[in-house]
Amino acid sequence: MRHLICDKSARLDLPHLVSQPRRCLIPVMRDYLNLHDARHNSGCHMHAEHHDLIAILIIKSRNGSLPTHHNPRRAVRKQDFQPQMEMAMQSLKYLGMMFPLWLALAASAAPSIQSEPIQPIAKAVIRNPAMVELGKKLFFEPRLSKSGFISCNSCHNLSTGGSDNLSSSIGDHWQQGPIRSPSVLNSSLNVAQFWDGRAKSLQEQASGPIANPREMASNHVLALDVLRSIPAYVNEFDKVFGNRNVSMQQVTMAIAAFEETLVTPDSRFDLWLKGNKQALNAQELRGYQTFKTAGCVACHNGPAVGGNSFQKMGLVSPYQTSNPAQGRAGVTGKDADRMAFKVPSLRNVALRAPYFHDAGAPTLEAAVATMGKLQLGRAFNQQEIGDIVAFLHTLTGKQPRIVLPVLPASSNDTPRPTPFN
Amino acid sequence: MRHLICDKSARLDLPHLVSQPRRCLIPVMRDYLNLHDARHNSGCHMHAEHHDLIAILIIKSRNGSLPTHHNPRRAVRKQDFQPQMEMAMQSLKYLGMMFPLWLALAASAAPSIQSEPIQPIAKAVIRNPAMVELGKKLFFEPRLSKSGFISCNSCHNLSTGGSDNLSSSIGDHWQQGPIRSPSVLNSSLNVAQFWDGRAKSLQEQASGPIANPREMASNHVLALDVLRSIPAYVNEFDKVFGNRNVSMQQVTMAIAAFEETLVTPDSRFDLWLKGNKQALNAQELRGYQTFKTAGCVACHNGPAVGGNSFQKMGLVSPYQTSNPAQGRAGVTGKDADRMAFKVPSLRNVALRAPYFHDAGAPTLEAAVATMGKLQLGRAFNQQEIGDIVAFLHTLTGKQPRIVLPVLPASSNDTPRPTPFN
Repeated sequence: MRHLICDKSARLDLPHLVSQPRRCLIPVMRDYLNLHDARHNSGCHMHAEHHDLIAILIIKSRNGSLPTHHNPRRAVRKQDFQPQMEMAMQSLKYLGMMFPLWLALAASAAPSIQSEPIQPIAKAVIRNPAMVELGKKLFFEPRLSKSGFISCNSCHNLSTGGSDNLSSSIGDHWQQGPIRSPSVLNSSLNVAQFWDGRAKSLQEQASGPIANPREMASNHVLALDVLRSIPAYVNEFDKVFGNRNVSMQQVTMAIAAFEETLVTPDSRFDLWLKGNKQALNAQELRGYQTFKTAGCVACHNGPAVGGNSFQKMGLVSPYQTSNPAQGRAGVTGKDADRMAFKVPSLRNVALRAPYFHDAGAPTLEAAVATMGKLQLGRAFNQQEIGDIVAFLHTLTGKQPRIVLPVLPASSNDTPRPTPFN
Repeated sequence: MRHLICDKSARLDLPHLVSQPRRCLIPVMRDYLNLHDARHNSGCHMHAEHHDLIAILIIKSRNGSLPTHHNPRRAVRKQDFQPQMEMAMQSLKYLGMMFPLWLALAASAAPSIQSEPIQPIAKAVIRNPAMVELGKKLFFEPRLSKSGFISCNSCHNLSTGGSDNLSSSIGDHWQQGPIRSPSVLNSSLNVAQFWDGRAKSLQEQASGPIANPREMASNHVLALDVLRSIPAYVNEFDKVFGNRNVSMQQVTMAIAAFEETLVTPDSRFDLWLKGNKQALNAQELRGYQTFKTAGCVACHNGPAVGGNSFQKMGLVSPYQTSNPAQGRAGVTGKDADRMAFKVPSLRNVALRAPYFHDAGAPTLEAAVATMGKLQLGRAFNQQEIGDIVAFLHTLTGKQPRIVLPVLPASSNDTPRPTPFN
């Protein structure tokens, strides 16, 4: 792959790279970083324009196209994909587990907070309170399910870290779901939704479970019939969207708007990042150092400490599981994507054992040990595991304060739930 | 039964009555009221001391003994059963459907609000905020169930009127429950808990579903093991109860303390009762008049508009249902109590179709029509039904404002949920 880089200037042959398949990109990035590390030692720095171009390249390779904002009424502007670019930059920095050298590089040029591979989570900015309020109602609305019993909150329980914390979720008629429910907290920071990234946005994700026969088991026609039969809902959709039609696009847009508010700022780690050096104790700091030097940060970086790339589960040695999920390959159809899953965010991770897509690790300690072996080829000792787990506990942020919505009553015309047939 | 009343003074032979079985009491009361109605017309009033004595008698006949306050550390004082006495007085007034005569009687002697058979609901008084907060956590705690999926709030959903509004509830492994879930809202005003009153208090009720194999399907040992394994819970129990044992008595006491706050004051009807004569429109007022004159108020009276007596479902003609529940007879073992159910509170009734213990009435209109026929022998016409339903809608009060609790994380020692075995 070295031929893709113009050795002399250490610049990338970008036109050539754009045409390459995704699997070729990672080794190129690694070589690029190696080269720059060598050059850094001789006083040469990377060019800023390359960062932007490579970030766009990574986004294209992940999504097939540049991302568009979930609000279709807005034109796509550069700012709209700035967060993804920043996340992609983070991925780029740590691909190939080049962290230690890169840290030195970054530290030489940037203030403290920017030199860390993890950034603080920003507080939620609520632009449309009425839409968020409607979205909250819909998130807690069991009548969007066939049974009238299951709401978004059933499997993404906001009392318990935004997830049900079961090995696999419970769907209509107590069907066992195929995979461990991911947390909805900070999910707006994910590069895509679901473990396999099959939904590009929160809005796209939200429509899935309603109509999935193994989850809420309704369908979009029935779900809309329910909402349209309830005058208070029709009035609220009218207030938010300016019409009384109630469409699935409106439903999912409102749910996504609510979910975008579900961020967890002000963890102890974030306080430390922002300069409160008393926020972490010695063990937690040691754990963070190990997390960085061991290479965990190669995938778990950015504001969400993950969530921004797909990686093969079992990079160094294969992951043994009875769960049939094949990850990203189910979306791309590519054999190279087999067992590639979205790297989960480690924000609030201490709230939601068990871990991994198959819930194969019952505790944080087990998860850290397994990740070390399978992804990094490294057997952490007990102290290292304890230290990393102590650090992970500092990622628990301020949980969203949710006033339980009071849902409008069904009318006589509302289709009744049918839980038992 | 007339011999039980000393005709001359129109006073009850109380020592004799105390020894009588419950089924003998109702006709005695009716005769007593008839006698007093006659005497009222000739200028004679009932003696206040009789009211207290009869109320105590009714409580005894319902519960087998005088009620004790749920907090065992407090001595029983007269104030502790004052609310029950007042409810019993309401029942007494309307037993035998003597409402119209009684209304005239009461109106002649009391100010407006006291002359109505329905009283406003008082706002919740929170005496022990720490216990209420702990109780709220436990109410939303899915780990009290075997599956880790079902909490009190699953079937008594505070977003939807304190109930799941299904024909029958969904239990562990999607088992169909035997009966429609009653609302937890204003349940502290009930004479007893469950449709058949088998739990004397909210505290007694709370322990039932946790260990019921058709509901939460856990057991008390396991539920306590879960709570004791979570340090934040142990600390919170310690703060509230002064010890770190965590007992089922503490769990249910805290849940009951939370449930006691779930009252719904300030309905439009309550505003009207308190003197705001603009709070109801003409149809709603007409509905209330019909509700009174037709005799609905014989059972649906007091602050909760029901909840204070057991009555036979199908008094005038039998209730046809495929639901095998036999009501109060299952508790007392008495044939006379067959199909006697606790009269449900009509507070917030518009929020929670379908109606009756078997959910046999899909709408309020159907429920009113059926009640008229079966309990009063009266076929309401369409206008009467519409008026009564309009009145019932005014009983929807201010719903409790619940900030969703953030539950403490499981520890490595917490027994894991087992939803699929």
